[in-house]
Amino acid sequence: MTDTVVAGRRAALALRYGTAEAERAELAGELVWNEVLATQLAHRSVRKFLPDSVSEEQLRAIVAAASSAASSSNLQLWSVVAVTDRDRLGRIAALAGNQDAVRNAPLLLVWVADLARAGRIAEQNDRDLVNAGFVESALLGVVDATLAAQNAALAAESLGLGTVYIGAIRNHPTELAEELNLPAHSFAVVGLVVGHPDPTAAAEVKPRLGVDVVLHREQYDLEAQEAGTAEYEARISAFYREQGLADSWIERVVGRFATPGALGVREGLKEALERRGFDLN
Amino acid sequence: MTDTVVAGRRAALALRYGTAEAERAELAGELVWNEVLATQLAHRSVRKFLPDSVSEEQLRAIVAAASSAASSSNLQLWSVVAVTDRDRLGRIAALAGNQDAVRNAPLLLVWVADLARAGRIAEQNDRDLVNAGFVESALLGVVDATLAAQNAALAAESLGLGTVYIGAIRNHPTELAEELNLPAHSFAVVGLVVGHPDPTAAAEVKPRLGVDVVLHREQYDLEAQEAGTAEYEARISAFYREQGLADSWIERVVGRFATPGALGVREGLKEALERRGFDLN
Repeated sequence: MTDTVVAGRRAALALRYGTAEAERAELAGELVWNEVLATQLAHRSVRKFLPDSVSEEQLRAIVAAASSAASSSNLQLWSVVAVTDRDRLGRIAALAGNQDAVRNAPLLLVWVADLARAGRIAEQNDRDLVNAGFVESALLGVVDATLAAQNAALAAESLGLGTVYIGAIRNHPTELAEELNLPAHSFAVVGLVVGHPDPTAAAEVKPRLGVDVVLHREQYDLEAQEAGTAEYEARISAFYREQGLADSWIERVVGRFATPGALGVREGLKEALERRGFDLN
Repeated sequence: MTDTVVAGRRAALALRYGTAEAERAELAGELVWNEVLATQLAHRSVRKFLPDSVSEEQLRAIVAAASSAASSSNLQLWSVVAVTDRDRLGRIAALAGNQDAVRNAPLLLVWVADLARAGRIAEQNDRDLVNAGFVESALLGVVDATLAAQNAALAAESLGLGTVYIGAIRNHPTELAEELNLPAHSFAVVGLVVGHPDPTAAAEVKPRLGVDVVLHREQYDLEAQEAGTAEYEARISAFYREQGLADSWIERVVGRFATPGALGVREGLKEALERRGFDLN
């Protein structure tokens, strides 16, 4: 039994961080491992699904997991829109980078930063939603929606379902809001496709930056990350090559943030949020 | 065995949503439940801890869980600073709402939206971080950091540790960044205290808005939430009364968003983010 657990942890750590981290953990001698950690470490993005639908009870369990995540001051500034209608999914796919994962999604969950509910409550109490325009207010909604989404993603995976996040849901916020009937003071932060994974399609665990690159002790250290970043570039390049891709993580980072225009339509997010009632003051 | 599982799910749903939802689930007949869902549903905020420290292997497992969460385009725009130094925790507590949970924290994890790493990589490739100023870029960092934080919180809870999120870490971003040596193009999104729960201190599962209030089908519906919001106000008021508190969730929402000045120092978040290199364009 313990041998199986040790082997499971070793394999999970090796896929994510390489064999050196797996060996380090084993030498450390303290076996910190369980079903939750195993489910978390095994995460991979799934983009091809069987046509089978996600059941109502699975959906409710996923949303119950989401709503059990922490919420700032228990304000619960989020909602989720579950989309299964094929025509609507097609229109949303067209707004969100034309991804087949969206177009063919068994279920698309759209996670919404939601101050509209608070606005309605204020209105019913003859008050105005005077604080929605601050950056902090938008951030409260984004953080609440994202905490909920991640609990949902893990819950789905624990049920044997596959997931993939859709950041492209932010490509056309105004049109998406019309499609989903999102009221003022709400906007879609991220999408999550959920379904039964197609077992014939590859979906690999993706290597990540080493634990010691992202984890800082007492104070942030930029220089200390350099060796680990180089180690990661080598490790993920090997992963990309195995997948038949010519790719470099460093080129991906430089391409996104050091290349004018690389954010494309999402450069317009500020104006789109203003139109949705988030002035970001 | 199945009886135990059914009873466990019933109890978890009843604490979170009331007995009606627990009964509805049982009548539905499909038993969707497992260890991951049970851990997620059992979440509660813990603010009092034993002096015992979180072990190095526990910390590494928590960060491994965090880094296994999805990341937009695998850019991994987050870092975490682990703080255990008592003097530093005292100074951070003073900057973050003077909470004893921070001052006495066995471990404080500060989740950082991190474009500084990307900036360093760009610099090493003789390029400039030209896209950091967009709202979308800050949002990418916030979402990545928050997905990581939630996996970390659940991982900690799965190990029998307790957690509480600290939104007040955003009260004084400039001073906090100095304390943690955060570079330009990074900022602290949220804190997470982790430790061994003090078994003598109460920490209850908090009721949440019903599943059907936050879950919308195909399109968002504001009016349909009203009955559920009223039901919740009654249910959580009963919870608050049991805890000896005179409180109303509706008054809390109105107090936060419909009362000028209620965000306090966090009204200054926009200017603080600009000073950290996030122009929010």
